[in-house]
Amino acid sequence: MSELWVEEVQDGTYGMKWRAKELLFRGKSEFQSVEVYDTVSHGRMLLIDGLLMTSERDEFVYHEMIAHVPLFLCPKPRRVLVIGGGDGGTVREALKHPEVAHVDLVEIDGMVVEAARRFLPSTSCGLSDPRVSVRIEDGVKFMAAAGEPYDVILIDSTDPIGPAAPLFGPEFYGNVRKRLTDGGLVVAQGECPFYRLDVQKALAQVVKGVFGRADLYNYHNLTYPGGLWSFVVAGKAPRDLSAPDAKRVAALQPKLRYYNLETHKAAFALPEFMKRGLND
Amino acid sequence: MSELWVEEVQDGTYGMKWRAKELLFRGKSEFQSVEVYDTVSHGRMLLIDGLLMTSERDEFVYHEMIAHVPLFLCPKPRRVLVIGGGDGGTVREALKHPEVAHVDLVEIDGMVVEAARRFLPSTSCGLSDPRVSVRIEDGVKFMAAAGEPYDVILIDSTDPIGPAAPLFGPEFYGNVRKRLTDGGLVVAQGECPFYRLDVQKALAQVVKGVFGRADLYNYHNLTYPGGLWSFVVAGKAPRDLSAPDAKRVAALQPKLRYYNLETHKAAFALPEFMKRGLND
Repeated sequence: MSELWVEEVQDGTYGMKWRAKELLFRGKSEFQSVEVYDTVSHGRMLLIDGLLMTSERDEFVYHEMIAHVPLFLCPKPRRVLVIGGGDGGTVREALKHPEVAHVDLVEIDGMVVEAARRFLPSTSCGLSDPRVSVRIEDGVKFMAAAGEPYDVILIDSTDPIGPAAPLFGPEFYGNVRKRLTDGGLVVAQGECPFYRLDVQKALAQVVKGVFGRADLYNYHNLTYPGGLWSFVVAGKAPRDLSAPDAKRVAALQPKLRYYNLETHKAAFALPEFMKRGLND
Repeated sequence: MSELWVEEVQDGTYGMKWRAKELLFRGKSEFQSVEVYDTVSHGRMLLIDGLLMTSERDEFVYHEMIAHVPLFLCPKPRRVLVIGGGDGGTVREALKHPEVAHVDLVEIDGMVVEAARRFLPSTSCGLSDPRVSVRIEDGVKFMAAAGEPYDVILIDSTDPIGPAAPLFGPEFYGNVRKRLTDGGLVVAQGECPFYRLDVQKALAQVVKGVFGRADLYNYHNLTYPGGLWSFVVAGKAPRDLSAPDAKRVAALQPKLRYYNLETHKAAFALPEFMKRGLND
């Protein structure tokens, strides 16, 4: 019997691979291809257009770091918006905060949500919470409409190709700013400084253009190429990004596997090549 | 023409691959197989027994972090010992410190040094420096012998399989302690907490058994599986590991691409799962 391997190759020149037990789901939506594999070493994996989005083994790192950094910085995060993130992991983390009364998840592709609900229950579990509204809509259009503001907006997007491309542009961030409370924060998936410093820099400049300032923070990703990945964070008001609410962190710590007070602060320490590249 | 790929597969279940332009060298020493490939995306790569040791594209991260963390913590690092590290990258970084008067490199396998000298000149360049003695010897035996003490000892080893296995044991670390100056520090390659927390924990316990304390610090590795890797550090005297000599850092900063004051301090912030796993 031949072996089944999941492979992700970048630029045709380097890649990662995982041995799979079986293909659980393969579909083609109007936006992209969606696949779920069960792997030997990394649990179940969701791929979009052949790129690995999330694996059961390490998704906690990404999802904790996109959600808890802004949520612990925000004094009273009552309303949260997630753009993208159809697997539900970011929503699950946001819901751990007792202050959060409502989460809107706006995902363009219903097939991603359905695949996650069926095949990634430990990731998507939060989507059934009564505090959550799942909206299968274009995040760009949603953001352009008027509505009640959010305390935290999380742009949990794929790379800036395909349907996610407008999520990296200035018009989108102008609308994000309008929908943030005065003390609110936005965090966006910010790519890999080793391999995509150009994209990272362009995104940081767009965000800075709208908010006057953009900060990056890093985390480790087991299953994304390079292992060093970043988020971009910005807000309307100036704020000490290295000072999360320690009391609230202590209360949630038993539920967190990567995030702690030290990793929060350390995430903002950028390697020298990254600082230089971003300031070039 | 068929494509040439360099592949490293762990446990038969997950791996990384890089497209190669050509195989530059392949040899079999009495200890292991040694290969050098030229890749499309990552420059030249050195593999030992099929495992990637170093790539020209990202070796600066590993070599800066193994060397500069202890060297900037040590007030006057005059004598440095590197065990393993036949590619020369760790030696090159140690030599950047003007305080360093002498470096001994003790590598068991002459073929690694020869391959690095011929095919990885930007990594091995320091090996020809007049301050350096290259000794093709068994590091375990070298360590067991009497001799002048070192201010910094760097265990730049492969994984604890094959010839490097004794470098992870208590007898070896007992000898390391004897060869350290009173204010000296030892740093050792400390594996990947995502995939090898058991090995990491065992090493930390060995080092703690000998020195009374062992600290881990992290760095990002582009081409090692998992992307999050660690070093173990210990010394005879208690010391504030988060306080490198800022003046010396500032003087060397233009020559460093990953290390800076912030990454030094941040490296000691361990993710929650790592803290828990190490204390279990």
